[in-house]
Amino acid sequence: MQIAMIQDKITPLEKLDPVHLDRGTFFGDGVYEVLRSYNGKIFAFDEHLQRFANSLSAIQITGVDINEIRTKVRNAFEKAAIPNAQIYFHITRGSAPRNHNWDDSLKPNFFLTVTELPDDKKVKAEGIAVSTHPDWRWKRCDIKSLNLLPNILARRDAAKKGCVEAILVDEKSFITEGAGSAFFAIIDMALRTSPLTSNILPSITRKFVIKAAGNVGLKITEKSVTAQDAAGADELFIAVTTKDIVPVVKFDDKLIGDSKPGKYTKLLMSEFRNFIK
Amino acid sequence: MQIAMIQDKITPLEKLDPVHLDRGTFFGDGVYEVLRSYNGKIFAFDEHLQRFANSLSAIQITGVDINEIRTKVRNAFEKAAIPNAQIYFHITRGSAPRNHNWDDSLKPNFFLTVTELPDDKKVKAEGIAVSTHPDWRWKRCDIKSLNLLPNILARRDAAKKGCVEAILVDEKSFITEGAGSAFFAIIDMALRTSPLTSNILPSITRKFVIKAAGNVGLKITEKSVTAQDAAGADELFIAVTTKDIVPVVKFDDKLIGDSKPGKYTKLLMSEFRNFIK
Repeated sequence: MQIAMIQDKITPLEKLDPVHLDRGTFFGDGVYEVLRSYNGKIFAFDEHLQRFANSLSAIQITGVDINEIRTKVRNAFEKAAIPNAQIYFHITRGSAPRNHNWDDSLKPNFFLTVTELPDDKKVKAEGIAVSTHPDWRWKRCDIKSLNLLPNILARRDAAKKGCVEAILVDEKSFITEGAGSAFFAIIDMALRTSPLTSNILPSITRKFVIKAAGNVGLKITEKSVTAQDAAGADELFIAVTTKDIVPVVKFDDKLIGDSKPGKYTKLLMSEFRNFIK
Repeated sequence: MQIAMIQDKITPLEKLDPVHLDRGTFFGDGVYEVLRSYNGKIFAFDEHLQRFANSLSAIQITGVDINEIRTKVRNAFEKAAIPNAQIYFHITRGSAPRNHNWDDSLKPNFFLTVTELPDDKKVKAEGIAVSTHPDWRWKRCDIKSLNLLPNILARRDAAKKGCVEAILVDEKSFITEGAGSAFFAIIDMALRTSPLTSNILPSITRKFVIKAAGNVGLKITEKSVTAQDAAGADELFIAVTTKDIVPVVKFDDKLIGDSKPGKYTKLLMSEFRNFIK
């Protein structure tokens, strides 16, 4: 008899709830998105849905109607009635006995949560400390996949050092991005960030930061900085959907600027607010 | 109200079955093993348990008693009563609302299946075709983790080309290993395989292949081969727990040897049988 065991309980394999055969767990075979709302309105909804569609396509999950996803997200968001909410959702390829290859007839699994965002006034006003970690991720970080073990290990390492985010550094000592954020430096009155390659997630917030920088007349250079460049930068910040711009005031052991959010960072934070209507 | 949605069904988050909050799904935050039995006896049980302990330790999952895992595996295997069985098991860090960092008090989730191995006489007698794919995996492939999206995408690509396995090639055109196997070449009467670095899984079967090669007096060189070297090799084979040695008779478009399993490969297959008692 082919069997399964969950914790200590043995079950015939054919009677197993398909939730235990999710390819999301066996292989991280799925993609996800994180959205947020400001005062009851979902920010950059279309952009996130488009990126989600791109991620699905990149890993060949087919037959998902993005308009149905839009409706599901809206329904859940309205039902939750949380003005400043974080909306997380993922789709995995489906449930089946473990096998590397898959059957195209599998029905994808959809999962979503709507939760209340914690208050971010303090981190945005005071800034955060970050620490560097080797970038151990795979070579297709442009896909927002469920293969996030290197990200959580880096984030854990940062937490142990009293830091809020891990900044990932490649083998040539260039910063790619944060474990869960885009990374920016202000050097010689110009905004510096990594170009979008296959090692970088095409961050939606990054796009709006660059737009904000254009609006305030800041020069923008899409060129990676080294960890050494970053430690000596005039200002640093990260950008992430759930908190938009967050100033970085400590980078490893190095205090940035005068350990307070810098003037250009504050200018960009203020400009960013104009996108939230 | 904080809510979750599974497919189309909305539930209050606090009423959600923890199975839906498995960090294995959110992050691939877990490690696994695959064992097999030959005629009712589990092969290299201790070696696999030791590697599993190493993987758990590498991703900082603590509090798992390996002797308890041994007992669970034995119980399930005996209950299944399948002489030639594949035993798969994984442990994830546990279930919790999604957050990169984790609480050390989380209780790990254990999952196991015992299934019947398909007959492998034909593939072992005739050999298989393999195709190359860029190695997109993360930089800690020495950890047997659930982050397997690059592996399944490579295996899918191989399947589309009528191949059974994908052979992963790094940026310098060196072969690391197969998507789910170790890779070996016979060149100038010597056995060649990649050395064990952080890009390579320390394959148990590889260890026994090397032992078999020693027993038959074959020279062993732990040095990576390029895809070009492999295409021109005298013989090729892969090694994987579920099928031990499988001859490779086609590498991309190139036929290997005379498209039949080579003499050293057959010698090693024969020698390997001596380990199975």
